[in-house]
Amino acid sequence: MSADELDTIARFFAPLATHPAARKLKDDLALLQTRGPHAITTDTIVEGVHFLPDDPIGTVAKKALRVNVSDLAAKGALPFGIFLNLSWPAARPAAQLAGFAEALGEDLKRFRSALMGGDTTSTPGPLTISITALGRPLRRRAPSREDAKPGDDVWVTGVIGDAYLGLCALKGELKTLSPRDHETLAARYRVPEPPIAFAAAVARLARASMDVSDGLLIDAGRMADASGLAIRIEAAAVPHSAAAQRWLAVPENASRQQRLLAGGDDYEILFTAEPERRAAVRRAAARAGVAVSRIGAVEKGAGLALVDAHGAPLPLGETGYRHKLGG
Amino acid sequence: MSADELDTIARFFAPLATHPAARKLKDDLALLQTRGPHAITTDTIVEGVHFLPDDPIGTVAKKALRVNVSDLAAKGALPFGIFLNLSWPAARPAAQLAGFAEALGEDLKRFRSALMGGDTTSTPGPLTISITALGRPLRRRAPSREDAKPGDDVWVTGVIGDAYLGLCALKGELKTLSPRDHETLAARYRVPEPPIAFAAAVARLARASMDVSDGLLIDAGRMADASGLAIRIEAAAVPHSAAAQRWLAVPENASRQQRLLAGGDDYEILFTAEPERRAAVRRAAARAGVAVSRIGAVEKGAGLALVDAHGAPLPLGETGYRHKLGG
Repeated sequence: MSADELDTIARFFAPLATHPAARKLKDDLALLQTRGPHAITTDTIVEGVHFLPDDPIGTVAKKALRVNVSDLAAKGALPFGIFLNLSWPAARPAAQLAGFAEALGEDLKRFRSALMGGDTTSTPGPLTISITALGRPLRRRAPSREDAKPGDDVWVTGVIGDAYLGLCALKGELKTLSPRDHETLAARYRVPEPPIAFAAAVARLARASMDVSDGLLIDAGRMADASGLAIRIEAAAVPHSAAAQRWLAVPENASRQQRLLAGGDDYEILFTAEPERRAAVRRAAARAGVAVSRIGAVEKGAGLALVDAHGAPLPLGETGYRHKLGG
Repeated sequence: MSADELDTIARFFAPLATHPAARKLKDDLALLQTRGPHAITTDTIVEGVHFLPDDPIGTVAKKALRVNVSDLAAKGALPFGIFLNLSWPAARPAAQLAGFAEALGEDLKRFRSALMGGDTTSTPGPLTISITALGRPLRRRAPSREDAKPGDDVWVTGVIGDAYLGLCALKGELKTLSPRDHETLAARYRVPEPPIAFAAAVARLARASMDVSDGLLIDAGRMADASGLAIRIEAAAVPHSAAAQRWLAVPENASRQQRLLAGGDDYEILFTAEPERRAAVRRAAARAGVAVSRIGAVEKGAGLALVDAHGAPLPLGETGYRHKLGG
C-alpha cells in the first residue's frame, strides 16, 4: 500500500481512538495513566487459519476483537482499550478497510473500549490481525487455569460445538443442514459471543477459569495439566444448541459429539467451583442471562477423561493446534 | 504446527517470562500491578517486507523487539515488558524457534525487559511478528511528534541511510561495496541500534520527537504536518557513516544522498529543541555516547523542504510506505 492509502486508514481508525491515551493515533505510542491491576491479553487471527478468506470483513474485525474479550471475560476482567496490528494483503481491496474499521468501531462501542494505537503494514501473505487488549479485573483476583482443586465441579457457559459446525458448513462439508441452521452456525463461527455478562461472576465464584478457544477437550486437558489434577467430563452433560442437536440426531451420534467437543472457536468460559457454590453459580448465571452447565468434576490424578452416562470412558478424539503463550 | 510442537515453543519462551505479571506464560493473560504513566507501543514486522526471508532468525527476533524499543526511546521511555504475537510459517523449520527465542532472550536481557505474554499461531503466509511493548516514561512528559515550535532546531541521532544501503547490499544491488562495508551495512539493516542511552535526554530536552523508521524525509514530513509547521532540512548537515560516505563519493552524489534520506529502517531519533538548548543537547549526547547532528530548523508554514548548502531546494525523492496508527 502507498503512504496515501495508509493515511486513509488513519482517517478510518482515528474516530475509534476515543481514549486520551491514544493521542488521537497521531503519535507513535499511547501514554496511559494507570493505577491498580491491569489484565493484558493478546491474540492473532490469520486468514485461512482462524477465519475464511471470504468471510465478510466486518465479521473478521469483530472476531479479532472478541477472541481477546473472551480471554479477559474468562478471567473476570473487561476490556477498556486495544492495540491493533493489521497486516493487510496487497491483493485485498483497500475498500474493505472502511468496512473493517466500521465493524471494529461498532464492537469497541459495544465492549466499551477504545482503540489506543496500532500498526498497519502491507503483507504478501494472508490478512493477519493481532489485537492486544487491556482490561480491568472486576475483582482483585483473576482466576488462572491452574487453580482447580480436587472435588471442584467443572462448568461451562453457553453451548459447545456450534462454531465448529459453522466452519464445517462454510467449507461445504455439511450438506444436510437446513438453510437456517447453516446461517446460525456460520454466524457462531464468524462472530463469537463471549459471555461478558458472566465475567463478574467468574471473578467472584470460579476457582480455575479459562476460555474455550481451541476446543473443550484440549482446553479442559490444559486446565487439568496446569492444575496438576485430573478432569472428568460427562459427554451427556455438555450442552449443545438446537441446531447442533439436530446434527447429532443420527445413529453415529457418539463420534459426532466428540467432534463437537474437539472443535474450536466456542469462546465460552470453562471454570471450576466448589460444590458448595452450585446454587450461587446458577443464580449468578440467571441474573447475567447466561446459560451454565455442570459438565464434570476435578479429581486427583492427571489428564482428561471423557465418560458416558454410565461412567465408561469414551475416546478423546482430536485435539486443537494452537497454543497461548499467556498474555 | 501440532500441539506438541507448540508445547515445545512454550518451553523455549517460558524462561523469558521473568516478570511475575507473566504468570510464567501458563495462563491466558498477564496481570500487571500498575502505578503511574505507562507508554505502550506496537509494531509488526513481516518477512519480505521488513526483513528478508534468509535473514538469520536471531536478527529477525532482535529487529522485531528493537523497532518497538526505538518508538519508546524516541519518546523518552524505556521498555520493561513485551507481548509477542508470532505467526510461524508451516514451511519454516521449527528448529529455528529455539534460535528465535534465544536471540529474543538476549535482547530482552539487554533492554531489561520480560516477555509477559503472547500468542503463537501457524500461518500459510510469511513469518509475521507483532510485538507490543510496555515502557516507563523517564520523565512525566513524553514528547509527541506534534510539539515542534517555529524556530526550533531539528536534530537527529546517529547516522542516516546505513540500513537502506544494507538492504540494497543484501539484495545484491550494490556490487562495488567492500566486503567489510557490505557486512557493516547489512548488520545495520538487520539489527537496528536504537539510541536508548539518549532516551532520558529526549525526555528532558526535546520539544517534538519521534523515531526515524520509514525514512528521514517522510518522518520529518510527518512531524511537520503533525505540528502544523514547516521543517527545512539541510542535506549537507545530515550525518552519514564512513561506509555510506564511500558509497556517496561519486559524481551523482546528490541523487544518491536523497536515496539515503528516503530509505527506511534507521531507527534513530528525530527531535526538535529550542536553539537555547544547543549546548545542553550536545553535552547530554556526549554523556550518553550518542552522536547528534543539527540538520535543520522548524519554520512557520507547512511541509518539508530539503535544501543544499546554499539554501536552494532539492527534490524530495521517494517516500516510505508504512503508517503508524499511534501506539
